[in-house]
Amino acid sequence: MGLLDPNRLFPAEPGLRAIAQHLYDGVRDLPIVSPHGHCDPRWFAENTRFPNPAELFVVPDHYVFRMLVSQGVDLADLGVPRSDGGAVETDPRAIWRRFAAHMHLFRGTPSAIWLNHAFETVFGLTEPLNADTADAYYDHIDAKLAEPAFRPRALFDQFNIEALATTEGALDDLQWHRAIRDSDWQGRVITTYRPDAVVDPDFEGFLENLEAFGALTGEDITTWEGYLNAHRKRRAYFKDFGATASDHGHPTARTENLPQLEAAALFQMVRTGQATAEEAEAFRGQMLTEMARMSLEDGLVLQIHPGSRRNHSAQVFAGYGRDKGFDIPGRTDYVAALKPMLDAVGMEKDLTIILFTLDETTYGRELAPLAGAYPALRLGPPWWFFDSAEGIRRFRETTTETCGFYNTVGFNDDTRAFCSIPARHDVSRRSDCAFLAQLVGTGRLSEGEATEVAYDLTYRLVKEGYRL
Amino acid sequence: MGLLDPNRLFPAEPGLRAIAQHLYDGVRDLPIVSPHGHCDPRWFAENTRFPNPAELFVVPDHYVFRMLVSQGVDLADLGVPRSDGGAVETDPRAIWRRFAAHMHLFRGTPSAIWLNHAFETVFGLTEPLNADTADAYYDHIDAKLAEPAFRPRALFDQFNIEALATTEGALDDLQWHRAIRDSDWQGRVITTYRPDAVVDPDFEGFLENLEAFGALTGEDITTWEGYLNAHRKRRAYFKDFGATASDHGHPTARTENLPQLEAAALFQMVRTGQATAEEAEAFRGQMLTEMARMSLEDGLVLQIHPGSRRNHSAQVFAGYGRDKGFDIPGRTDYVAALKPMLDAVGMEKDLTIILFTLDETTYGRELAPLAGAYPALRLGPPWWFFDSAEGIRRFRETTTETCGFYNTVGFNDDTRAFCSIPARHDVSRRSDCAFLAQLVGTGRLSEGEATEVAYDLTYRLVKEGYRL
Amino acid sequence: MGLLDPNRLFPAEPGLRAIAQHLYDGVRDLPIVSPHGHCDPRWFAENTRFPNPAELFVVPDHYVFRMLVSQGVDLADLGVPRSDGGAVETDPRAIWRRFAAHMHLFRGTPSAIWLNHAFETVFGLTEPLNADTADAYYDHIDAKLAEPAFRPRALFDQFNIEALATTEGALDDLQWHRAIRDSDWQGRVITTYRPDAVVDPDFEGFLENLEAFGALTGEDITTWEGYLNAHRKRRAYFKDFGATASDHGHPTARTENLPQLEAAALFQMVRTGQATAEEAEAFRGQMLTEMARMSLEDGLVLQIHPGSRRNHSAQVFAGYGRDKGFDIPGRTDYVAALKPMLDAVGMEKDLTIILFTLDETTYGRELAPLAGAYPALRLGPPWWFFDSAEGIRRFRETTTETCGFYNTVGFNDDTRAFCSIPARHDVSRRSDCAFLAQLVGTGRLSEGEATEVAYDLTYRLVKEGYRL
Repeated sequence: MGLLDPNRLFPAEPGLRAIAQHLYDGVRDLPIVSPHGHCDPRWFAENTRFPNPAELFVVPDHYVFRMLVSQGVDLADLGVPRSDGGAVETDPRAIWRRFAAHMHLFRGTPSAIWLNHAFETVFGLTEPLNADTADAYYDHIDAKLAEPAFRPRALFDQFNIEALATTEGALDDLQWHRAIRDSDWQGRVITTYRPDAVVDPDFEGFLENLEAFGALTGEDITTWEGYLNAHRKRRAYFKDFGATASDHGHPTARTENLPQLEAAALFQMVRTGQATAEEAEAFRGQMLTEMARMSLEDGLVLQIHPGSRRNHSAQVFAGYGRDKGFDIPGRTDYVAALKPMLDAVGMEKDLTIILFTLDETTYGRELAPLAGAYPALRLGPPWWFFDSAEGIRRFRETTTETCGFYNTVGFNDDTRAFCSIPARHDVSRRSDCAFLAQLVGTGRLSEGEATEVAYDLTYRLVKEGYRL
Repeated sequence: MGLLDPNRLFPAEPGLRAIAQHLYDGVRDLPIVSPHGHCDPRWFAENTRFPNPAELFVVPDHYVFRMLVSQGVDLADLGVPRSDGGAVETDPRAIWRRFAAHMHLFRGTPSAIWLNHAFETVFGLTEPLNADTADAYYDHIDAKLAEPAFRPRALFDQFNIEALATTEGALDDLQWHRAIRDSDWQGRVITTYRPDAVVDPDFEGFLENLEAFGALTGEDITTWEGYLNAHRKRRAYFKDFGATASDHGHPTARTENLPQLEAAALFQMVRTGQATAEEAEAFRGQMLTEMARMSLEDGLVLQIHPGSRRNHSAQVFAGYGRDKGFDIPGRTDYVAALKPMLDAVGMEKDLTIILFTLDETTYGRELAPLAGAYPALRLGPPWWFFDSAEGIRRFRETTTETCGFYNTVGFNDDTRAFCSIPARHDVSRRSDCAFLAQLVGTGRLSEGEATEVAYDLTYRLVKEGYRL
Repeated sequence: MGLLDPNRLFPAEPGLRAIAQHLYDGVRDLPIVSPHGHCDPRWFAENTRFPNPAELFVVPDHYVFRMLVSQGVDLADLGVPRSDGGAVETDPRAIWRRFAAHMHLFRGTPSAIWLNHAFETVFGLTEPLNADTADAYYDHIDAKLAEPAFRPRALFDQFNIEALATTEGALDDLQWHRAIRDSDWQGRVITTYRPDAVVDPDFEGFLENLEAFGALTGEDITTWEGYLNAHRKRRAYFKDFGATASDHGHPTARTENLPQLEAAALFQMVRTGQATAEEAEAFRGQMLTEMARMSLEDGLVLQIHPGSRRNHSAQVFAGYGRDKGFDIPGRTDYVAALKPMLDAVGMEKDLTIILFTLDETTYGRELAPLAGAYPALRLGPPWWFFDSAEGIRRFRETTTETCGFYNTVGFNDDTRAFCSIPARHDVSRRSDCAFLAQLVGTGRLSEGEATEVAYDLTYRLVKEGYRL
């Protein structure tokens, strides 16, 4: 039978399904352009084998382990390291069995589709994973991982990836990107400038990070001018390693456009650890506008990923640290929040600011109206909890009528789960084709137009939007 | 013809419809488990006949009378008692005729489905109710109500109810539950501990309620410890009458986890009627965490029903009192609001907290991400205005991808309209099967999985979630 | 082939489609009742030809030019006048070509449907507009506009418009409405009282507007009583020219019901330019309640259009002034905001208050629950960005279950693009029939009921709701 329905995610109505299939046939085999994500560049630099099935599919994937935790499985029993170095499960097969025994939890979730897609198309598995098949799965995948064809670079090629952007902090020396560049491998793996650790006063170790930022760039980090110059130098360095974009993960979309004297004074409060919560928030906001101005200088695309309330559980944060599946979206305002930045640079035609959201209520009310007016704005695809069939449908249904297709930028997989990349892009292509089929089937778009739009959404807009 | 389309609420597309029908066939006749609602236990204690059609279908059902009021009918003309004891319509036939003449207002609403379901399946009526058929309807129903088969206990059995939870205040002596227990009837009617009247400082008569609470429990209600002990005693008393859950209807989802000394001081402000609005809100929030801690002791499930702005019309409240259809949902935050309680007890595996909402925007943004992470959290079904075909569809579409099916707890009818119970559960079963059929028909779930999920959503999850 | 699919916007599923077609057949040719919009009454007073295709389709339509601006076209290059009188494009053919070359931007948007509907049904064009066909289009439309049959009055008749409401400010002398009344033409073009310029302290020129308001009415505008009387006189004057409604475009839905002495004192702050932002907001809120009270006296329907953050781009506002496509919706609260007004007049059966929103999250959570309870409230149709197939679907899906169809008032086109009026009403009729077909096809409504509802939504409710 197989794990994958060839018609999955297409409309059930036969007429619409035929249209969707036809559109999908035209984009299914286009190269993957992955302009934003969290793969580890070391994989491609070293090209050693992935250690085992659990470390490939379970330990790094917060979509997976959070669901198990929500049903009473301990993070430690899934091999997630404790902050205090305390004992956690070290047997990958035991972790795998726990995961397999809980596969039913993923029914109806995108994780099920992503996992099954990788199981079948990458590893050739066709029986459902569950407690009974756990060991056979483990053995099969583990054996495959030992083969040369399952090394990172080989999979990169097999996945037909044209470009893959990773995300590195401002202090990263990009050694793995250097190693890739210095190798004879031709795969295009580029970096992205993500300076949260030296921009967000609430980031762990912020003051030390600032020191390191100054040391790394040779700039006098005690002055506002020196601080901005340090960013300019790091942006240039990242551009050297292929970066075409910066990325900013802030709790809100707040921006500011203070007079430079005020901004400099604010920086002094921040730099000396004296900033109030409100000042910290204002500083993050000011820095978005500064980054946008630097983008006008150096051409980097500005990505804003706001609205996640990070590390919601104090207990999990204390026990396991960041990024453990307890980041929860919150209400996000864009209309007032972005106005200072947009008043400064929103009408610039040579600037691209890509907005993301975890608050779907803003699609129709705020984001599409903004992106349908300001030349500098584009909408990023559904993010995180919403990069799914239903999430993509809602995104298209609530943005397209107001800002069209051409103020959007195609798909981001945004993942650290390497084997899910083809699956995620496939879900996106199928979901967009399903939406287009609906428009064609209800007389809102001709089939010729839809064919063009499908190509644009899959390939052209992402390359243009990210200047790849 | 009949009032009911046998395929109602199934997808129109024939392939999906066939799947939905098949899934529904597997759950249609499962017993009704009703873990939360507002039926009057006196019905089952006394087992006397329902007085007349108007008192069965119109007077107690705020879904019904609010719609008529919105189109200019006076509450008094529908027999709703005035606070001042002033004259209201007393002729049930006149009330019934007014209702019947306005049946067209319910087109497209769940009330139409619930009413027609009861008319046809309980009373055998097949002509539409309207002004012309009003009298025939009245006479027919009234005659039926005189028959033994239409007494409350007989209907309870006919409806195939396995368990029915009512909701009583903390000061209730549970005399009707006692009478049921002391009778030879085997129907399982249990209570639920709803302490709002002694927890919410803004509740009518709060200070007097506290006095009564102390008197009833023999606890020294002037101390924080005594007050908490009073709750413990009442919870135990309610457990004696079958309660497996408490329920809390607060204006917001705010929680607090204050140090006990601060909580005690706050209680003194509250107890002496000196609390500000902010302190009242903080106290309600503190009590949710206290109740969660008591749940860890005694095993009661904690239900939170936040977000209703009660008694919105000052004029209606002055004229007719509470619960007259003028409770309006408002924006509700969960992410920040629940954090204190979740930091205290959210990772407990032996605790079940069931969250409800009247703010659908929180399904995907807040509730599913929270329930998909914290082991103690489960999502209650769509509530109140949203316990309908479209409401259930939106609930499943926006929560399933993030928290799956297994962090939800099946259906609540939450009704005081007894005859609507089978109808409401039927709507839920059909709507869930329609959703599952969509997943099957678009390759996201196998039919075998869907069959299992349909059973779980209808029967297993509600029993497990409520420990019934 | 033609530009229009005869089955556009109907469900794709053949069974549902047949039902929708049948329902649509019953309402397709009903007269257009347009109770709220922004057409220029001068067109019908003078009845001279429309100057050229660009001034008919591009320059006045912010839906159109904002999309082009969002993709880098300058407003000046589309002929939009600069505030400083600086040079802008004056060649209508050049403007038209720019527009035509960007038609692909409108794929999937209602503008595409509206434009193509006008091109085909009004001008008989059947080839798609693009860069290649731009000149042929221009020449064809320009030639048609020279014909008598394309004069405003002739089109009004051809469009089968039974009544068309325009919107004029409180200071308008209604000279064009007078000219229409004094002419021998029988078309019903009525005005609407829109007093924002003398009600909103933040309106440009507010203090001068107040002066003019006093001069125009002969009332002593320095007193609260005189100010209210001035409104009464202007309302009566507008009623003389057919007005059946007032309209209020406020940034929020805030209302107040202050004691008259406080209201008078607030007016003094406002009148003398001393009001704070909070006082200005309170004054707008107070005036909604005052207007509602006047409505009880004179029978005008009260429309509230809240929630637009006007003139979002400081740069565009400075360069081009108001209404240039940079009005962005924002979150809007109704539950607390409307309570003062509803406590004052919400239970009045002889009052009609029509609520609009740009915040779709309020449909199910706030607006439908309010309209489903208060006799004075009705819901206006989807507005602005949401008067589209998807917008109408979401409106019906999220309001109908709670407030039914009969607390809504049919469709508003709300347009200043005259040729789009038939298109917009057609979209509304098709979308409502599609929704009704869904209800019929899933057993929630009989076909007879749906036929009646389709008529009501298209014709009866708008005439009753607006007292036309």
